[in-house]
Amino acid sequence: MPAMTPDDLRKFVETEFPQAADSGFLIEHLDDTSIRARLPIRHQHLRPGGTVAGPTLMWMTDFSFYMLLLGRLGPVAHAVTTNLNINFMRKPEPADVLAEGRLMKLGRSLAVGDVTLWSDGKKDPVAHATVTYSIPP
Amino acid sequence: MPAMTPDDLRKFVETEFPQAADSGFLIEHLDDTSIRARLPIRHQHLRPGGTVAGPTLMWMTDFSFYMLLLGRLGPVAHAVTTNLNINFMRKPEPADVLAEGRLMKLGRSLAVGDVTLWSDGKKDPVAHATVTYSIPP
Amino acid sequence: MPAMTPDDLRKFVETEFPQAADSGFLIEHLDDTSIRARLPIRHQHLRPGGTVAGPTLMWMTDFSFYMLLLGRLGPVAHAVTTNLNINFMRKPEPADVLAEGRLMKLGRSLAVGDVTLWSDGKKDPVAHATVTYSIPP
Amino acid sequence: MPAMTPDDLRKFVETEFPQAADSGFLIEHLDDTSIRARLPIRHQHLRPGGTVAGPTLMWMTDFSFYMLLLGRLGPVAHAVTTNLNINFMRKPEPADVLAEGRLMKLGRSLAVGDVTLWSDGKKDPVAHATVTYSIPP
Repeated sequence: MPAMTPDDLRKFVETEFPQAADSGFLIEHLDDTSIRARLPIRHQHLRPGGTVAGPTLMWMTDFSFYMLLLGRLGPVAHAVTTNLNINFMRKPEPADVLAEGRLMKLGRSLAVGDVTLWSDGKKDPVAHATVTYSIPP
Repeated sequence: MPAMTPDDLRKFVETEFPQAADSGFLIEHLDDTSIRARLPIRHQHLRPGGTVAGPTLMWMTDFSFYMLLLGRLGPVAHAVTTNLNINFMRKPEPADVLAEGRLMKLGRSLAVGDVTLWSDGKKDPVAHATVTYSIPP
Repeated sequence: MPAMTPDDLRKFVETEFPQAADSGFLIEHLDDTSIRARLPIRHQHLRPGGTVAGPTLMWMTDFSFYMLLLGRLGPVAHAVTTNLNINFMRKPEPADVLAEGRLMKLGRSLAVGDVTLWSDGKKDPVAHATVTYSIPP
Repeated sequence: MPAMTPDDLRKFVETEFPQAADSGFLIEHLDDTSIRARLPIRHQHLRPGGTVAGPTLMWMTDFSFYMLLLGRLGPVAHAVTTNLNINFMRKPEPADVLAEGRLMKLGRSLAVGDVTLWSDGKKDPVAHATVTYSIPP
């Protein structure tokens, strides 16, 4: 059972990451090793041509995995990303971004997982990333 | 339906990659977007301490994805790896290595996927990698 | 000799990426295979604790390499990032971010390079990334 | 000043990694943050077409960085690779492989660096990789 529920995390984000809370970031599912989150797409995320900006996808990747990790561990303030490797595979639609994250390893000092990103309503992913976090002692 | 069956691929490997054939590399399942392969562990793959060497895991990753790609495309001689990113997560057991590969994108010039590796009989993966191949015109 | 000068690129950015222009992003040096750029640090990039947000570093990495590529090729509209792998190594200071990018391969369809990021005034890098762009025919 | 000289490392490799010693792997330069190493090319590393096999390049990358780390830290037996990300950029020649490694961060629990690989006699690199090692307490 996760240490924090989606509702706990929502309150944590409102306090600690108000910009993320303002983005509309929403956890739709959370368990011990997986998360599903949604980012409502808004004007400031769009690039010319109507696609979602790469940095928005990278932020969504990192933040979704961070939420999965906090959900599991509780509010450890100082977990930090040490590695993020992302493959951009398809041009995103101007639609909500869905992220599915998976925790593959939770060690004493490192957590490793991956995150797949979709445009809402599409079957094929727009991006896939692996993420490593360092967990303080 | 894949362009080549596991049996087609086995014959191709025997001719083109005799060292791989000698390794005992075996395709246990293959479809359009996934592969499951096995590497029987042998003395030359083991490091002091009885674990499987990292380069063996990297080879297994790359070769499994190459087989998945050839299975899908047919024997395109010149597909080459352009990127491989691997996270080593747990010490492998001195056991067969199982690989499950997944094709996430097959574009005109790039193919992207990931490969998860297990020690046979264990639940948690020993490594996870993403792989990109360049496909010649 | 690059196809575009820093001044050409500045005008291109003002037209095509007004948010990037507003950020104060500045090219300090550009040649055929390297770039040095600066991001003046502003309130919106800072996280609690006074450090620069990871997504800001990822954006700076990607945009600096894009500028290096455009400088070399001219304004090819549709070059897109296919892979970005970043290692976060040290906590950034609340200072300008400096990026040094290097083009290691410019092929017909792929460009590969790396970008190192510093906090202005510090010797050790805060992050290092490799970047791959796909170049349309 | 490194904790081990190239000659110390050579003896360590002969004892602990006899296969590596047999490969002819040679450290040509070593200091606190960089290494230059050579792998004499031999028949077993070559693929059809006369190029050096990808796994050989991955092994050379990992082992060169491991030597750099041991040179700096002394013979810490249990440092292990946690991440390796490699971009293959050009087809290697059937020639010796040269590796230049650089240590970018040496923290309490993680070491991060990169390795560039060349075919001897060529100016442009065949591959570039970033490597992370976990250092036991």
